[in-house]
Amino acid sequence: MNKIIRIDMTGLKRTTEKSPQDYQLLGGRGLSARILNTEVPAMTHPLSNENKVVVAPGLLAGTMAPSFGRISFGSKSPLTKTIKEANAGGTAAQKLGRLGIKAIVVQGKPKENQIYIIYIDSKGAQILPVPDLAGKMNYDLVDSLRDRYGKDIGVISIGPAGEAKMTASTIAVTDQDGRPSRHAARGGLGAVMGSKGVKAIVINAKGTRAIEPLDKEGFKETIRDLLEILKRDKGTQSLSKFGTPRVISFLSQLGSMPSWNYHGGPVKDIENIFGETISEVNQGRGGRMHGCMPGCVIQCSIVFHGEDGKHLTSALEYETLAMLGTNLGITNLDAIARMDSMCDNLGVDTIEVGSAMAQLMEAGIIRFGDEQKVLETLKELEEGGPMGKIIGQGTAFTSQFLGLDRVPVCKGQAIPAHDPRACKAVGVTYCTSPMGADHTAGLDYRDSMSKEGQVKKSYDAQILNATIDSVGSCFLAMPTKAPLIYDVIEKLINATYGTDLSKEDILNIGINTIKEELAFNHSAGWTDIHNRLPEFIKKEKLQPHNVVFDIPQDEIESIFNF
Amino acid sequence: MNKIIRIDMTGLKRTTEKSPQDYQLLGGRGLSARILNTEVPAMTHPLSNENKVVVAPGLLAGTMAPSFGRISFGSKSPLTKTIKEANAGGTAAQKLGRLGIKAIVVQGKPKENQIYIIYIDSKGAQILPVPDLAGKMNYDLVDSLRDRYGKDIGVISIGPAGEAKMTASTIAVTDQDGRPSRHAARGGLGAVMGSKGVKAIVINAKGTRAIEPLDKEGFKETIRDLLEILKRDKGTQSLSKFGTPRVISFLSQLGSMPSWNYHGGPVKDIENIFGETISEVNQGRGGRMHGCMPGCVIQCSIVFHGEDGKHLTSALEYETLAMLGTNLGITNLDAIARMDSMCDNLGVDTIEVGSAMAQLMEAGIIRFGDEQKVLETLKELEEGGPMGKIIGQGTAFTSQFLGLDRVPVCKGQAIPAHDPRACKAVGVTYCTSPMGADHTAGLDYRDSMSKEGQVKKSYDAQILNATIDSVGSCFLAMPTKAPLIYDVIEKLINATYGTDLSKEDILNIGINTIKEELAFNHSAGWTDIHNRLPEFIKKEKLQPHNVVFDIPQDEIESIFNF
Repeated sequence: MNKIIRIDMTGLKRTTEKSPQDYQLLGGRGLSARILNTEVPAMTHPLSNENKVVVAPGLLAGTMAPSFGRISFGSKSPLTKTIKEANAGGTAAQKLGRLGIKAIVVQGKPKENQIYIIYIDSKGAQILPVPDLAGKMNYDLVDSLRDRYGKDIGVISIGPAGEAKMTASTIAVTDQDGRPSRHAARGGLGAVMGSKGVKAIVINAKGTRAIEPLDKEGFKETIRDLLEILKRDKGTQSLSKFGTPRVISFLSQLGSMPSWNYHGGPVKDIENIFGETISEVNQGRGGRMHGCMPGCVIQCSIVFHGEDGKHLTSALEYETLAMLGTNLGITNLDAIARMDSMCDNLGVDTIEVGSAMAQLMEAGIIRFGDEQKVLETLKELEEGGPMGKIIGQGTAFTSQFLGLDRVPVCKGQAIPAHDPRACKAVGVTYCTSPMGADHTAGLDYRDSMSKEGQVKKSYDAQILNATIDSVGSCFLAMPTKAPLIYDVIEKLINATYGTDLSKEDILNIGINTIKEELAFNHSAGWTDIHNRLPEFIKKEKLQPHNVVFDIPQDEIESIFNF
Repeated sequence: MNKIIRIDMTGLKRTTEKSPQDYQLLGGRGLSARILNTEVPAMTHPLSNENKVVVAPGLLAGTMAPSFGRISFGSKSPLTKTIKEANAGGTAAQKLGRLGIKAIVVQGKPKENQIYIIYIDSKGAQILPVPDLAGKMNYDLVDSLRDRYGKDIGVISIGPAGEAKMTASTIAVTDQDGRPSRHAARGGLGAVMGSKGVKAIVINAKGTRAIEPLDKEGFKETIRDLLEILKRDKGTQSLSKFGTPRVISFLSQLGSMPSWNYHGGPVKDIENIFGETISEVNQGRGGRMHGCMPGCVIQCSIVFHGEDGKHLTSALEYETLAMLGTNLGITNLDAIARMDSMCDNLGVDTIEVGSAMAQLMEAGIIRFGDEQKVLETLKELEEGGPMGKIIGQGTAFTSQFLGLDRVPVCKGQAIPAHDPRACKAVGVTYCTSPMGADHTAGLDYRDSMSKEGQVKKSYDAQILNATIDSVGSCFLAMPTKAPLIYDVIEKLINATYGTDLSKEDILNIGINTIKEELAFNHSAGWTDIHNRLPEFIKKEKLQPHNVVFDIPQDEIESIFNF
């Protein structure tokens, strides 16, 4: 894996470079951060010619390691105006890894308002105009591409929202079923891809083989041990059965599952969306669990069927059930699944759009609990109606439009489905992460309502996640304890690359990634002052534990003391 | 003038304080900056409970000095997210000065979604609910208030745009004819007033007299000398005849009058909006020139009549003719006058809204030159239609909605009607002023296309304007050369207050004001990095002189070296 493919959309040219030696141990998020920090002027407009989209599989992509096939997308974000990485599962990373591609860097913008795909196979990359695919929804788009290029392709794509450069737009990645259900959802990166006129990247890895680790035995042994750990883990077992919604019964009790636009309090019939309920309903309709990427043993992704027994949506996750569900006062499972399907198809982030919908409810434009109106507003987004287009710009934009000052964002990005009052380390992550409120940047629920030690916990979790995002592993397919995770990564990297990295070297993958990101943000005008949660999180008590977020601001600002 | 009236909209209470001794020589913009910097948390949301609206007449308000009746409004701006001062002429400052009121500080927000007016006379202040006035356009509103409280009141008000908390909304001030034609237009301060539920401040100065200067003779002599200078000045003479549009013939030749959304180039029939043409047309219809504030000898404000010979709009200024005219490819005088009238009535900034309209044209939603569609979109704003409501949020917001990356703003505020490529000192002001792109923050056209010395010129102009905005003088009623202006101010302040200030002390009024503003912005997360013009201003050549803005960024960032 040592090729960097550059796609220049201005000149419609592609080149292949050999990756520099000092990039060897950079992958995924870490590689993306390095490239952006080196090549993109930090003050540039995110939709400008100068911004780039970095597509980078993790360091272990293409190997036989299961669940190490996450793919990172990086840009200056049009939503947060910070550096941004969002990653997804699916099949693309493994295919790129097998093709020896360490990164695709999409730069420039086409002179004409044209739409292209980038087609990549073992012979190289092509930039192909596809005027007939303009405006297509993700599912339709992928169907067309699979008709054209065969069922075995991996597709990275944007929906109409990305084409319209909406700041809540996603980049979708096809899963093992060939469905565009895995989204690098946060930060509006679909808009950057849209601004470059790239509708999709099609990856055909036909004729390639998995990357052989240099130390095959060590590699196999580590995987064997990892699978043994996972098999014994109670959390993993329930994840396999119920997917991420397994946490709903617990988090709704704790109060950290947002409800009523973060005003909190119980939502009627919440048991309708408990993981256990979903599983039962779905099995009865012929739905199933699957792994989003090849080789995954967890299989936590829900392939959800509708009342008619047909496929309705894939990857019905906890975050969606919270942000398009309880946070809107909605617990109708089928309605939420339909919303999820529409969002995937349009290519918008369910968290960002869900939170924007909650602001419409706050302003009295939609009644809390009115699932029909939410569906209609998503339909309006599809049809280009004004309220839909506003929602598609995300929470901060919608709040400004409505004149609201209770704006649940950090650095412009909507607070996701873990209310920081009830899980304070996550709150610290939201406001200090270089990329705005993002639960995947560092989640830690231990002793979650205490005031003590949360900054340290967030720090550790952020470094860990930056490491994991660079390696390309799925967080959910890892041991629960950090030392074990670092151990697995150390062994797999050393076995694959023939290196002799220590635990500290592995830790430094994460640390250096965050350093790169902070350096970019600093050059983009971000200071410690911006590391703060909205006021209401510090003032309004959250049920049922009547907690506010009370970590002192100076303690928060001291988090990255490199 | 030593009273500070506090209006607490949460508790609906008003108190009167004696102004602290160290506030004696703070007025207008300088006083506003001090109060905001002392009392408002810099990171607060501009529409939050914690933000305040400071209403502060200049230091010489209420005296017999002519054209020293400008009034400052200050807040953290919902448009720029910086500290903000916007000022206007009209009659309010003189009345407040006569009432001995140095500032009104509006704070808090009403618990119920109610609309109030603040009524101020020699007996004090009252907060009165006025549910019947909710949603009223500015002209209607003022008519109702004049019916209720007599013709001699001064009114400070917001239109429907301010009530809807639009970030392009203004605060209007009535002129000598009792019309709400003078606007503190920039920075969306109307939205802050709207967020506090204050529809209008009504000032009744009945029974009061002009402030007596301590040194009457010195005061009179200075005024006499000032008037003599102005009478002889050619610029003032043409200003009296043609108002601010007098510059159109010259600036359109120079290229600094924006056209075609800052793409530049000639606009057909531009002579239709030359000052000379407007004067001729308007006189033929029974229109006239007048002074916006009592005692003004310049009388540069155009009271413009329509084809039917009836009043159409007051204060038809150069900026409006550029931003709703040439920059949209429009030179139909009557159409622009109608737009101006609608903007005044709605309470929106013609610069911000004009520039947002130009972005609609850039995106192809309205054709360049289509004055009917512009009028329809303003009508949509009036009726609460979506595109109108988007425009009402200003240029940056509209650009995001449209997915455009050529965004003509500095610190979130639209670049006004002096293209920085053709007047580079003004460009330096746009990007370094603590309050975003604002021509009134420091204008200097000398040797305007040279690369040399522009940062110094902008610095001097910014300090001068900060001084003038603190004194409450009209820039247009001052000598053209800075030393003379400082001389006039020094003499008038010393005569009024019995002080013995030196030229340096007067200069320090401006310097200290900018220091306060920069300190606020620093605490709000603004750094030197943000002091920059949009890229296109540095890259796209402007006709007819084929110039770009080429002042080095490091020279720009060194401007405030206190």
